[in-house]
Amino acid sequence: MLDTALAGAAERIQSCLDTALAEAEPGPVTDGMAYATRGGKRLRGFLVLETARLHGVPAGQAAWAATSIETLHAYSLVHDDLPCMDDDDLRRGQPTVHVKWDEATAVLVGDALQTLAFACLARPDCAPDPARRIDLIASLARAAGIHGMVLGQAQDMEAGRAGRPLTLDEVIGLQRNKTGALIRWSAEAGPRLAGADPAALGAYAHALGLAFQIADDVQDVEGDAAETGKRVGKDEGAGKATFVGLLGLDGAKARAAALVDEAIAALAPYGHRAETLRQVARFVIARKS
Amino acid sequence: MLDTALAGAAERIQSCLDTALAEAEPGPVTDGMAYATRGGKRLRGFLVLETARLHGVPAGQAAWAATSIETLHAYSLVHDDLPCMDDDDLRRGQPTVHVKWDEATAVLVGDALQTLAFACLARPDCAPDPARRIDLIASLARAAGIHGMVLGQAQDMEAGRAGRPLTLDEVIGLQRNKTGALIRWSAEAGPRLAGADPAALGAYAHALGLAFQIADDVQDVEGDAAETGKRVGKDEGAGKATFVGLLGLDGAKARAAALVDEAIAALAPYGHRAETLRQVARFVIARKS
Repeated sequence: MLDTALAGAAERIQSCLDTALAEAEPGPVTDGMAYATRGGKRLRGFLVLETARLHGVPAGQAAWAATSIETLHAYSLVHDDLPCMDDDDLRRGQPTVHVKWDEATAVLVGDALQTLAFACLARPDCAPDPARRIDLIASLARAAGIHGMVLGQAQDMEAGRAGRPLTLDEVIGLQRNKTGALIRWSAEAGPRLAGADPAALGAYAHALGLAFQIADDVQDVEGDAAETGKRVGKDEGAGKATFVGLLGLDGAKARAAALVDEAIAALAPYGHRAETLRQVARFVIARKS
Repeated sequence: MLDTALAGAAERIQSCLDTALAEAEPGPVTDGMAYATRGGKRLRGFLVLETARLHGVPAGQAAWAATSIETLHAYSLVHDDLPCMDDDDLRRGQPTVHVKWDEATAVLVGDALQTLAFACLARPDCAPDPARRIDLIASLARAAGIHGMVLGQAQDMEAGRAGRPLTLDEVIGLQRNKTGALIRWSAEAGPRLAGADPAALGAYAHALGLAFQIADDVQDVEGDAAETGKRVGKDEGAGKATFVGLLGLDGAKARAAALVDEAIAALAPYGHRAETLRQVARFVIARKS
């Protein structure tokens, strides 16, 4: 059931991406934008569509907000993979943009994807009321920029230079910014599109995001390259503080499970209608690892 | 008079930048954002403020749109200067961000500056009517992304690989995207903030932008490093097609002068109230070269 829902959301998002990119001048940067947004679970976009559904927002409108967050996420991955950043050659089992093209193209692809994310939210078909669109844009800018994702990346870089491992609280704070902010925005997008209070879904996403990151660390230790599509044990090898390093493997798994329970508890106001979001939370720690 | 007006605009923009960056977490990325937005003529921001004044928009509101375009312009410079792009060590006579900090920081500084540009336009104090803000955001995304500035940069990269010099029409088309789109957005921002027709100011900016780029090429040939604050003769040395190369030095100067006349003619509907914008056009080719 979750698989079907995820596949349906991914298809809707792809259709918006195709529309947005079809009118762009053909060339390596446009090709790179299409390439970088292809594949993946599109979990963030799914959260937008699913929380929009819970608030009675038409899927055709929510699809643009879902496309926006997937586009923004893709930009962050393309820049993250650059040689001067994480220097990753593989992403989802495929060559990264700077490997397939070159670094200059990858910089431009990421830049243009970020621009496109805001363009998607500014479209009239994203929400008829301009005030709703502005709310989404302002909150996305806050989640993505120096108060959110980029701050988390900066904190991550600083940690690498600090010469001492981060504490658990520091890693939690860093991840809340680096990966948590976009996940939270995604889950809050539904109520925002409806002009409703995003607090319950914000709490859900807050716990979900951290569980997701802990599960990622667990997978990094337990997985193998064929399954995760990236080099395994890389974070540990780079001397980065991970949840597994700080809590131990069993401790990390227990913490992730507790956070999943917390995420599910936050969905209470939505009753049985939020069953798919509960499945998403369970899926986060059930990923093959 | 123009100097005073430019200085006043620059000060207003600085005050907004200070406000926007004051609440960011201190660190190298925030420092780099402040550094990259410091100095320069702030001509784009000035165009926003001046065209807003012509349309009766309060300067306190227009200042946020002016700050947005200067922030976006600064992002493009930081990424342009990267080793994988133009590989410039100096900008306005100062070390570029990746030289003063490092490449990873420069990527994040540019990324966060782009985000901040959209955040500035989403602020309620940018325009009380959300529909006006959406109009500015949608048009900025178009001017900055794969339909505008990034397209121009991609065309520039392609030209370097093509192994044949570009024709005059191709260089004009490239510059229209690479530098013209943001200049045009700046001049159209005033009428957009007022909900008025931006056609006349769009025509002004269209001619102004091209004159500006031709004057830049002239300056690149005639200037010296102390005056322009960057390495001189670089574009020519890199085998790039320039207006001076295509039209000759005198031909390029004549073309720039004709474009300035064209820009000034487009201001007719504004009468004597547009005198400062006329001065801006004349200033473009009168820069010491």
